[in-house]
Amino acid sequence: MSLTFYYAPMSTASMTDVVIHELGVPCERVKLDLKGGDGKKPEFLKVNPNAKVPAIVHEGTAIFESAAITLYLGEAFGVEKGLFPAPGPKRGEAMKWIVWSNVSLGDAVRRFTWNTMPWTGPADEKNEKAGERAKGDIAAHLKILDDALAGKEYLLGTYTLVDTHLHAFTDWIRSMHFDFAPYTNVAAWSQRCGARPAYQKVMSAGAHG
Amino acid sequence: MSLTFYYAPMSTASMTDVVIHELGVPCERVKLDLKGGDGKKPEFLKVNPNAKVPAIVHEGTAIFESAAITLYLGEAFGVEKGLFPAPGPKRGEAMKWIVWSNVSLGDAVRRFTWNTMPWTGPADEKNEKAGERAKGDIAAHLKILDDALAGKEYLLGTYTLVDTHLHAFTDWIRSMHFDFAPYTNVAAWSQRCGARPAYQKVMSAGAHG
Repeated sequence: MSLTFYYAPMSTASMTDVVIHELGVPCERVKLDLKGGDGKKPEFLKVNPNAKVPAIVHEGTAIFESAAITLYLGEAFGVEKGLFPAPGPKRGEAMKWIVWSNVSLGDAVRRFTWNTMPWTGPADEKNEKAGERAKGDIAAHLKILDDALAGKEYLLGTYTLVDTHLHAFTDWIRSMHFDFAPYTNVAAWSQRCGARPAYQKVMSAGAHG
Repeated sequence: MSLTFYYAPMSTASMTDVVIHELGVPCERVKLDLKGGDGKKPEFLKVNPNAKVPAIVHEGTAIFESAAITLYLGEAFGVEKGLFPAPGPKRGEAMKWIVWSNVSLGDAVRRFTWNTMPWTGPADEKNEKAGERAKGDIAAHLKILDDALAGKEYLLGTYTLVDTHLHAFTDWIRSMHFDFAPYTNVAAWSQRCGARPAYQKVMSAGAHG
């Protein structure tokens, strides 16, 4: 039942970090210095040939992609804790929102950052109008999320890893100065999710995590 | 046990179509005319507020995102047919490749099409250099897939829905004139996957599916 978690501070691995804290699963933590080249070292490329975090190794099997990791840990450790649905249509809802956050919402966010943020690449690879369109697409996705949360405390009713995963992502969007005020359901949900001890603990560790 | 499949010809729904054919699951098929506005009709937006196909409704629950649908149908119908791993680390491998195809490989492909293809948007939202970088990133991802297929017939050893899903995507990439010759393992795997009756049947239906 060995679990190893590969991460870097201030990265997408924070999503997985909160998931692991919510589940209370013991794991060995391996911190990578991505700027220092740890991601490209042969021993890590065996774990994740994409040279990115998060990645986990569970019982000898390497798993990458944050959405896959949340789904995997949810199935392995979350059902008995009430944090992930048992197999069936409700689990399908968990799958659709977790994948949606990385694929559809994620696509809009990546187009926004690629086209507007200096840290994603050279200025001559950016297009201002594409950045504007992406900004509008992020807003459209937040509206979809807002509608899905209408009349609910959490996406599947009670708190699950769907909220853990999606909130870690939307909170990063919020930190890029997106105003959540028009999305009243998202704003209230975000406060509920942000108050969870697991989230607080990972965020307070911050750059030193 | 009712299953409804919402699709449009020549769309990402083809991935799901092949998955359903591989599983041999009976379903009601609902064909949408996306150009004619079927995706934005209120009755479909209740199924998928993203106004996109594929989408399914299973036992009254709507599920969108092609990767989530493959994972869901795999769990529900694939295990007993040997097309999807039972819970455990092997299933984690299935999750990581299915998610990888839509998130990481998908990101490179979407950046390529957004920046180079007329059908994705106006010319003044494109950036030629970003398109070139994306093309290189697609190649880098095909190399990762090629390495993962070394010494194997299929990604998890035997044929599973991981191959169904990923091959439907890479075959679309190939159709955009990407040369698979440098990726000998991918090229051989692609031929094996493309020869499957389920894939042949969906492709031969083509625009009239």
